[in-house]
Amino acid sequence: MEQLPKAVSQAVKDVHASNPLASSWTNFVTINLVANAQLAVGGRAAMCFLPDEAKPLAFISKSIYINAGTLQPISASALPEAAKAAVELKKPWVLDPVAAGLGDTRNAILKELKQYKPDIIRGNASEIMALANLWELQTQNGSVDGVDAKDSVDAALPSAKALASYTGGAVAVSGEMDIVLDNKCICNIYGGSAMLKSITGAGCSLGGVMAVYLSVSDAFTAAVTGSAVYKWASQNAEKPSIGTFSFQTAFIDNLSLLNPETIQKYFEKNSEVRYVEPFKRYF
Amino acid sequence: MEQLPKAVSQAVKDVHASNPLASSWTNFVTINLVANAQLAVGGRAAMCFLPDEAKPLAFISKSIYINAGTLQPISASALPEAAKAAVELKKPWVLDPVAAGLGDTRNAILKELKQYKPDIIRGNASEIMALANLWELQTQNGSVDGVDAKDSVDAALPSAKALASYTGGAVAVSGEMDIVLDNKCICNIYGGSAMLKSITGAGCSLGGVMAVYLSVSDAFTAAVTGSAVYKWASQNAEKPSIGTFSFQTAFIDNLSLLNPETIQKYFEKNSEVRYVEPFKRYF
Amino acid sequence: MEQLPKAVSQAVKDVHASNPLASSWTNFVTINLVANAQLAVGGRAAMCFLPDEAKPLAFISKSIYINAGTLQPISASALPEAAKAAVELKKPWVLDPVAAGLGDTRNAILKELKQYKPDIIRGNASEIMALANLWELQTQNGSVDGVDAKDSVDAALPSAKALASYTGGAVAVSGEMDIVLDNKCICNIYGGSAMLKSITGAGCSLGGVMAVYLSVSDAFTAAVTGSAVYKWASQNAEKPSIGTFSFQTAFIDNLSLLNPETIQKYFEKNSEVRYVEPFKRYF
Repeated sequence: MEQLPKAVSQAVKDVHASNPLASSWTNFVTINLVANAQLAVGGRAAMCFLPDEAKPLAFISKSIYINAGTLQPISASALPEAAKAAVELKKPWVLDPVAAGLGDTRNAILKELKQYKPDIIRGNASEIMALANLWELQTQNGSVDGVDAKDSVDAALPSAKALASYTGGAVAVSGEMDIVLDNKCICNIYGGSAMLKSITGAGCSLGGVMAVYLSVSDAFTAAVTGSAVYKWASQNAEKPSIGTFSFQTAFIDNLSLLNPETIQKYFEKNSEVRYVEPFKRYF
Repeated sequence: MEQLPKAVSQAVKDVHASNPLASSWTNFVTINLVANAQLAVGGRAAMCFLPDEAKPLAFISKSIYINAGTLQPISASALPEAAKAAVELKKPWVLDPVAAGLGDTRNAILKELKQYKPDIIRGNASEIMALANLWELQTQNGSVDGVDAKDSVDAALPSAKALASYTGGAVAVSGEMDIVLDNKCICNIYGGSAMLKSITGAGCSLGGVMAVYLSVSDAFTAAVTGSAVYKWASQNAEKPSIGTFSFQTAFIDNLSLLNPETIQKYFEKNSEVRYVEPFKRYF
Repeated sequence: MEQLPKAVSQAVKDVHASNPLASSWTNFVTINLVANAQLAVGGRAAMCFLPDEAKPLAFISKSIYINAGTLQPISASALPEAAKAAVELKKPWVLDPVAAGLGDTRNAILKELKQYKPDIIRGNASEIMALANLWELQTQNGSVDGVDAKDSVDAALPSAKALASYTGGAVAVSGEMDIVLDNKCICNIYGGSAMLKSITGAGCSLGGVMAVYLSVSDAFTAAVTGSAVYKWASQNAEKPSIGTFSFQTAFIDNLSLLNPETIQKYFEKNSEVRYVEPFKRYF
């Protein structure tokens, strides 16, 4: 894993060079921030809501981001179609199980998405625990509290491991410290800013940015890179901020100013990586 | 009413201390600003659109905000379900009758919401007049002009009183001067900035912020507190602004920097409160 | 055409004086930016999605903006109803064929809109080429790439001419250089900033701003004025920008600070106008 910092740096560089299109099926609250964050790091964005657009959109996309927030009646068919198109056209995809556990429609959709095994699952601790429950991989008791986590990142670890073991991909748990893991490694990413919690869409846009990096790298590296650039950009955004909205401006500004070497150094200082036993013991 | 400035200060403080979840059913134009304004003052936000989410969302919320802008087909069942869930689960709620009078679907929904008697109704003068008409409480002639008021705040006073008399809650009329009233009191709030009209969502986000304060105080105090912090934050945002978007940034920044004592003093200087005769004479 | 710079200046002035309502049927990604850009230049905004609102909204509007992004099931009836209401109530309207060519629903809607002959069509080169194809006016081969243009503005010229010849209105092709043309003239507008491409919604909000100017002037002048103020404001926004989001703030700030004489001078220096042969030869 001594290669990971270099892989992170390379992912940042490759996105700058190729401007990959990471398309999204996402919620109305933060859809604009998702697109602007994706553009800021050097990717391109396109958002759709209709099932008949799932295939043509996947066809022109390098990767796909699916977010379960602010569902509509059409979401019940659109989100599974989008995931199915991703799998059929071999485009890697990110699942963001926003508010997992809240409402019958959302839970039914999330259950249906299980079969399409997302390359990355990103959520806060409570969402990761709720998803593992819905997918019957774990029976940990998380607690739904709207879009906010009530549980600690550490508490979600067994659920995260169970999900990674099932999908074979990466799982990212966002919080004060971020954890990214797959079947082989766990990475803790430190740093960042508590102010990220005081704007809406930090989590969603991070999922969208992970999808951008998933266009150019493997799932574990993409999730780690997304976390690292978010920790770096938010930490840097604190100083020029007066309040929450100038923080948001400075944060996206910093995302648009990423330097691969700077991120590599920041990541080396602010992360811990370790190999882990295979997770199958969790079943 | 000499207690009101202290109650305003207390509401600001209590929200800072408890970070209450005020969930929303709101429009697509300003949904992001509503959430960010709610977060800035210290609340938490969650937005939904599906009828089956009305009960679970109300269950985890301290208060609910319902806004009639950018309606969808599902809104015809979702908004009444959201209001019904609020009443059944005894969560106070705010109605924002955006563009009342425009379109059959909107008018039908607003009529159906009448039975659930919102704790706070917030709108511009024209919307308040249109709602009182739709609810057959008043026959004043306001004029619909999209989402903007054509009528003066004073002109809407009889309609506002009729609405308050019917609901038993508070009614807030937003304009150059804001008026908040219930069956016992009228409060005028002065100050603020004319620049608030040059960004979209000042009214919607004010409704969302009133819902946050409604989590910790009575309807009259919550509406007055929302108005007071909006007048203070917008007035303060003028100086560092170059144009309309740096004004928006400075405005949300100021909302995130509220000091209970400062707001109390500002409110004491920029408001007038008086007892009123019972409004039943308006029927 | 020596009158054009004066007409541009006059359009800026007339919008400042009359604050016209340009209502929109637009996508969820950039709906907030469209409204804020319209407000910044001095117009007013209102957004709807339901077919039953098409007529009442058109009735109170001076002009209408229809954008084909992020379609919903209801869009299939709503957008044609909105265009029909515009024609019946003699309100000029702008079509923004976002991602034309992507998905059956979108293509069917765009085909149905053909009969309502928009006063202005605004898109990037690939969208203009795709629309001319869908309307069977041209068989140029553009390539769909989500919401981004893969083709050069010049490459779209035959398609733009064919569209203008069919509608009798203006067609605007946005890019590094903008082209606006109708049956009599072609205008190239230079300047601007490459940073506009690094925020989402530059194109959509330009369409919304053209609709604002269409409230007070002919289609050709309105499209040219929109392009000119966007080139000026984005060029001015570069210097105070640190990254992409402070650029967005500075850009909207500049839109809110338009001076008619400054725009006239900028336009005189940064444009070329020439008469052209009638376009009917393209059929």
